[in-house]
Amino acid sequence: MELYAAMTTTPTTRFYRPDPVPSEVLHRILDAARHAPSGGNRQGWRVVVVTDAALRRKLRDLYLPPWREYVERLVARAGGRRSRSLERSDEFAEHLHDVPVHLVVCVDVGALTITDDELGRPSIVGGASIYPFVQNILLGCRNEGLGAAITTMLCRREPEVKDLLAIPPEYAMACLLAVGYADEDRRPSKISRRDVSEIAFRDTFDGGPFEA
Amino acid sequence: MELYAAMTTTPTTRFYRPDPVPSEVLHRILDAARHAPSGGNRQGWRVVVVTDAALRRKLRDLYLPPWREYVERLVARAGGRRSRSLERSDEFAEHLHDVPVHLVVCVDVGALTITDDELGRPSIVGGASIYPFVQNILLGCRNEGLGAAITTMLCRREPEVKDLLAIPPEYAMACLLAVGYADEDRRPSKISRRDVSEIAFRDTFDGGPFEA
Repeated sequence: MELYAAMTTTPTTRFYRPDPVPSEVLHRILDAARHAPSGGNRQGWRVVVVTDAALRRKLRDLYLPPWREYVERLVARAGGRRSRSLERSDEFAEHLHDVPVHLVVCVDVGALTITDDELGRPSIVGGASIYPFVQNILLGCRNEGLGAAITTMLCRREPEVKDLLAIPPEYAMACLLAVGYADEDRRPSKISRRDVSEIAFRDTFDGGPFEA
Repeated sequence: MELYAAMTTTPTTRFYRPDPVPSEVLHRILDAARHAPSGGNRQGWRVVVVTDAALRRKLRDLYLPPWREYVERLVARAGGRRSRSLERSDEFAEHLHDVPVHLVVCVDVGALTITDDELGRPSIVGGASIYPFVQNILLGCRNEGLGAAITTMLCRREPEVKDLLAIPPEYAMACLLAVGYADEDRRPSKISRRDVSEIAFRDTFDGGPFEA
């Protein structure tokens, strides 16, 4: 696919067909994705490609409690209302084990240079060495006709996930990527995002919208 | 460009021509990049497009002290040796103000759901809502024939950068992207990365290399 066509048509897929994904296809995606940048080119990324059904069910079982806690908080904050999008995400969570591939993406914490740990706000910069790689995988899935969804909810159960998948102590879990062929009947119709005029500014944050 | 061709040929560009970058080109990149995923689709990303020469010089001046500290630590750790790649990055740092465009990428901290803040390790998950967008920008630059470099070093001077660019308190600085046309004579010849067999494993981390 052409790059911008891929970028602008990669939704979060919530509903999947059970069909398995050929290893060659996953390999091709990873083989392109590994060219992402990382701090000092240390490439701390590792991917556990989980297709075993028992493991996927255990991952789903670990996923549900933190997911449900998150939903409760969101619903309470919305005065008891459950949005359509939340209902869809909830159905995704309940059926996570049915998605044929779980990519558990990890990163070697020792490979990260964290430059924002003394600013009195949550640190995010470690993510600069892993989520560009993750975005490459998401775009690669689109290129191969696969749907995918990124979720970081399972990080709340990182110790249990590391035990389950024999992930060494020095690695952090960055996300779970659900990957499979989308259920075409329940494919999201459009990707809703803010316009450039709302997100980009000229020279300073208060310098007015950046225009073409 | 075809997606995998773009992904596998996007190096970190250290040397730039001074030529300005047309606004239409930057706008086109951002217009594709904004389709990235983010937690709850909250799209906390904002970009300050800095082309003003005085501001770029001030950003370079803020960049140099933390960069030099980092280099000192690296060189000490390597027993006094300065690698070729470090020399190149050092030259990049000294000439940062000459790169025609600085994209200062910020994110609304309130838009982040941080699920890895109680694990006794550095948190990275906030980055999942901003660095996919950043990777889209890097690939978009490649698509437009532009070179680019991501650096998080300037986050060490976040308060000063926020003052300089009038960035509101609730935003964190995620990175600076240097963007411009590459100096073709000093273009990196290849992108060196680990093979898939070294980074992907089957079902568990100790399950052996993931093969096609």
